[in-house]
Amino acid sequence: MIPVDDRGLLLGDGLFETLLAIDGKPQHFGAHMARMARGCAVLRLAPPSPDEAMAHAAAAPEASGLTRGRAVVRLTLTAGSGRGLERPADARPRLLASASPIGEPAPEVRLALVAIRRNETSPVSRIKSLSYLDNVLARAEARHKGAEEALMLNTRGELACAAAANLFWITEDRLQTPALECGVLDGIMRSQVVEAAVELGVQAAQVHATPEALEGAQAIFLTNSLIGAQPVAALDGRPIARHALVEAIRSRLRTY
Amino acid sequence: MIPVDDRGLLLGDGLFETLLAIDGKPQHFGAHMARMARGCAVLRLAPPSPDEAMAHAAAAPEASGLTRGRAVVRLTLTAGSGRGLERPADARPRLLASASPIGEPAPEVRLALVAIRRNETSPVSRIKSLSYLDNVLARAEARHKGAEEALMLNTRGELACAAAANLFWITEDRLQTPALECGVLDGIMRSQVVEAAVELGVQAAQVHATPEALEGAQAIFLTNSLIGAQPVAALDGRPIARHALVEAIRSRLRTY
Repeated sequence: MIPVDDRGLLLGDGLFETLLAIDGKPQHFGAHMARMARGCAVLRLAPPSPDEAMAHAAAAPEASGLTRGRAVVRLTLTAGSGRGLERPADARPRLLASASPIGEPAPEVRLALVAIRRNETSPVSRIKSLSYLDNVLARAEARHKGAEEALMLNTRGELACAAAANLFWITEDRLQTPALECGVLDGIMRSQVVEAAVELGVQAAQVHATPEALEGAQAIFLTNSLIGAQPVAALDGRPIARHALVEAIRSRLRTY
Repeated sequence: MIPVDDRGLLLGDGLFETLLAIDGKPQHFGAHMARMARGCAVLRLAPPSPDEAMAHAAAAPEASGLTRGRAVVRLTLTAGSGRGLERPADARPRLLASASPIGEPAPEVRLALVAIRRNETSPVSRIKSLSYLDNVLARAEARHKGAEEALMLNTRGELACAAAANLFWITEDRLQTPALECGVLDGIMRSQVVEAAVELGVQAAQVHATPEALEGAQAIFLTNSLIGAQPVAALDGRPIARHALVEAIRSRLRTY
């Protein structure tokens, strides 16, 4: 339970991380905490101590009996108690953790372009904040269109991301992904994929691109901490081809 | 207290209303509930029963010993419990109410233009949602610039609103306010001011305008349920003149 005057509840004033846990052990914990610390700098919040956060993240699967196989650990950091847009001087952040069961990722996903855009003018578009309603509505819009995930542009019409994943595509056997300035979360798996590509001797470019870039793509895939790298089977009903590079990258991502 | 799996906390998935209460009685209750119902339609949530909401809203000042003078009542409606972007089929909305003391509104306010823009591509820009972090950051940016409130444009560069108020200005003795499509909340007081202007025989136009429109304005003012109509004394450090029409409108707004 959490107090009803918590700013995370009242105003979405806070951050979260979603970690994959395997056999009760949160994966890429350091990378997740580093990202949360970057988000704290944007929100001018004191970051949680990594030791305290690790204790929370490790205790959650244990408390939920999820110490075998895959589970998801959600870390939530709120800005503490206080009504109104301006935080009280004595507001103290709250850190919460919970664990839930999670199945294997689907082998592929269908995308639909949605009307809601990422607001790249706001730093909120580049952090994992508790103000996530645009993503909720984007996903619902995609579902309404018969797809499992949303393809979101930013307000300039550039490719950005999915509702809960980063976007990659392959053109001329090279990886492309929207630059962070396009209003994109710096995904933990996004970084891992770029590293994996480098190890495979493949270029990975962070670009500003319009949706037309996907029309000639050899393949499209999504990434996040829970799905790893997931091939896109269709975009707005048009089948998308596969490319061996996606499987090569997948097999290099530890834990997937 | 509220469960930690509440979607209002986890994802900003919900709505709120801020009502002025006078001597324990919430003002403009019907208008606030009608707006919450419109927000529920956007979020595909079952709206709360007005009777239940009224009971909550009336009980909150009582429970907090705020039955004399001005108080603020906050109604919060969350999408209920459930992890992940997609709501569980059995999610049931939660309605909460709380009351806090509030002083008289400041006689005037200074504005600063901020970098964060309203995302008019999202319906979230036109509802009072729990995903309010852009507003929190806009206010902080304005404070950092030595002002009390933020002037926000939308992503097309049009005038939109303040972090927690609607924007009006006077040109050629007529009222102007940004159209809702500019990414603006349909403020209860915004509507009241338009009505008051009509009663005074003054035109009130809902417009698409760039910041240059404010340079030649005879006066600028903000509106919300707590401040009524509040004159703007300065914009980015430049003094803003007063106009008798603002006071005439103020005096027509009951309860202010």
